[in-house]
Amino acid sequence: MSKVNIGVVDTTFARVDMGKIVIQEIENTTSKVNIIRYTVPGMKDLPIACKILFDEHKCEICIALGMPGPAEKDKICAHEASQGLIICQLMKGKHIIECFVHEDEGETPEHLIEICDDRARKHGQNLLRLLFDKMWLQKHAGCGLRQGFPDAGPI
Amino acid sequence: MSKVNIGVVDTTFARVDMGKIVIQEIENTTSKVNIIRYTVPGMKDLPIACKILFDEHKCEICIALGMPGPAEKDKICAHEASQGLIICQLMKGKHIIECFVHEDEGETPEHLIEICDDRARKHGQNLLRLLFDKMWLQKHAGCGLRQGFPDAGPI
Amino acid sequence: MSKVNIGVVDTTFARVDMGKIVIQEIENTTSKVNIIRYTVPGMKDLPIACKILFDEHKCEICIALGMPGPAEKDKICAHEASQGLIICQLMKGKHIIECFVHEDEGETPEHLIEICDDRARKHGQNLLRLLFDKMWLQKHAGCGLRQGFPDAGPI
Amino acid sequence: MSKVNIGVVDTTFARVDMGKIVIQEIENTTSKVNIIRYTVPGMKDLPIACKILFDEHKCEICIALGMPGPAEKDKICAHEASQGLIICQLMKGKHIIECFVHEDEGETPEHLIEICDDRARKHGQNLLRLLFDKMWLQKHAGCGLRQGFPDAGPI
Amino acid sequence: MSKVNIGVVDTTFARVDMGKIVIQEIENTTSKVNIIRYTVPGMKDLPIACKILFDEHKCEICIALGMPGPAEKDKICAHEASQGLIICQLMKGKHIIECFVHEDEGETPEHLIEICDDRARKHGQNLLRLLFDKMWLQKHAGCGLRQGFPDAGPI
Repeated sequence: MSKVNIGVVDTTFARVDMGKIVIQEIENTTSKVNIIRYTVPGMKDLPIACKILFDEHKCEICIALGMPGPAEKDKICAHEASQGLIICQLMKGKHIIECFVHEDEGETPEHLIEICDDRARKHGQNLLRLLFDKMWLQKHAGCGLRQGFPDAGPI
Repeated sequence: MSKVNIGVVDTTFARVDMGKIVIQEIENTTSKVNIIRYTVPGMKDLPIACKILFDEHKCEICIALGMPGPAEKDKICAHEASQGLIICQLMKGKHIIECFVHEDEGETPEHLIEICDDRARKHGQNLLRLLFDKMWLQKHAGCGLRQGFPDAGPI
Repeated sequence: MSKVNIGVVDTTFARVDMGKIVIQEIENTTSKVNIIRYTVPGMKDLPIACKILFDEHKCEICIALGMPGPAEKDKICAHEASQGLIICQLMKGKHIIECFVHEDEGETPEHLIEICDDRARKHGQNLLRLLFDKMWLQKHAGCGLRQGFPDAGPI
Repeated sequence: MSKVNIGVVDTTFARVDMGKIVIQEIENTTSKVNIIRYTVPGMKDLPIACKILFDEHKCEICIALGMPGPAEKDKICAHEASQGLIICQLMKGKHIIECFVHEDEGETPEHLIEICDDRARKHGQNLLRLLFDKMWLQKHAGCGLRQGFPDAGPI
Repeated sequence: MSKVNIGVVDTTFARVDMGKIVIQEIENTTSKVNIIRYTVPGMKDLPIACKILFDEHKCEICIALGMPGPAEKDKICAHEASQGLIICQLMKGKHIIECFVHEDEGETPEHLIEICDDRARKHGQNLLRLLFDKMWLQKHAGCGLRQGFPDAGPI
């Protein structure tokens, strides 16, 4: 059976190598996929990178990793990237999992690294579920799952 | 007569299982529809999930359920999801009813669950009206109907 | 001569029946049009409703009526609807007149109704001018015309 | 040689007739163009008006004139119009020069009229440069040119 | 071997001639490219300029240079331009590197010029890496690279 191509898109702007973490997580879980990594300068380059991975590298799904800084300008940048990622998905009919960690989410550098690690791994798993196990997601609908932090849980 | 396919899209991020509520509401009301449920990780995944339900599952209409958290970041996330849902509708020429409940809408957990229940049920009914009874909606134009809260009523 | 189809799109969320007002205004002015009314639950459903009226009901123009509430959340909702209405127009190459009245525009309920009435009627006239009398609009370019309030006038 | 069609799009909402100014400026400068004017009610109608001028009137370029009021609501309105104008350009592969004057830019009515006049004339010239003299623009790259105010100049 | 066409798009609004800097940087680095420069009046004209360079001048990649002023209005303007640049990339399947310097980023005129110079040069190099050396970018994923300022570095 031929493997499924998945795209991992990340940036040189980010201060934690989440691409490496997510690739490790995916490869530790399954051998059914072929990972294509594409690194771009900044968050706003993520949508077109995904588009290229879908068009030219036959990816079935992508994960877009970014790490917006703490300034207002960075928040707007992340917003624009998110809008582009959604439009790209609608153009191609395929999922892109957005995995952004804002630099001000962590209280200390250690905490920030922890968030990045947890979010990248959990979204790596989400990517595989969207490909191979949608029922897992359905069983956890409304369960208050979180990535980067402990689950909030259902109310 | 063949049934009409309708899509119910929800998230694992939400803390109340509104998908279950809306499916129950619809199934209690009619047997003319065939419900396809699609659960995704978060709100930003809703637009592409609807697109896939329209394209690959021949849905005539979708309802997108989400539950943004109380932080500013979550509000922006909901905004991006909403924009994507509108673009998806325009691409496909079909309705998606957006049914979002913001976590800070409820004063207590009980109140929040009540809002979710009421909004999901009423929008489940709206979905059926868009399919089978548009005249009901026209008769209630300008009536200040609300979902999740009591109707505001006409002025 | 066959009549021109025009779409009047409104919501059950609104607290004033502006659809009725605008239909009355148009019918009192001309018999050259055929009005198709489409009522949807909320403002975010307006863009797709216009799309459907253009595609399936052969409308040449639409008017989209909405009444955002006073909360910040409602303002964002109106913003998203507006963006969708503009995209819909560009997709179809046809005008949609947006006629929104924000609930906090009126100082009293009576004032609010007055605004709705005036804005709906004037935009009903604008719709007819875009169809039948573009020269009227050109003659009033830069004249500070207002809908819902007295004209600001030229400076 | 056949003339180039250019579109001048303006509104009845504006309080200064910038359409007249820009037409005068263009006609005083060249006889190589054929101006088609299209007046719409408000700023949000500008994108579709440009689309129609490109599609149905074979315009090669448009200028969109608007005059947002001082309220927050008006700023959002201008933002939505701007987004639509950019999308319209991308759809058609042709330039639209946006020439908006915010009512609160002027300190007095006289000042506001002065801004309108200066901005409309300078952008009229920019339009002609995009058509006939792109080298002029290139020679002034990074020169801090302004419309409506004196040039800021290079740093 | 035929050269690769690259587009350099800048504005007359900017107060520093970043187009010149980026062209110099690129030409000092490689002779494998053919640079096409396109100067437009303001930032909002950048997306359509890139579209034209892709469509009519067969560019493989563009860099869009802009310099938003310090006012809130200018920030919105930059936001709209950014959104348009992302949409343009998705339409064409090609990268546009956005290189904007906000006038309020610099503490003094000298500092501002320094930022412009550094950002333009580094993004010129990023452009070449996207064309010829994607592995360089991948090797620097998560390294906290910055343009205009010293690198933030990995955490």
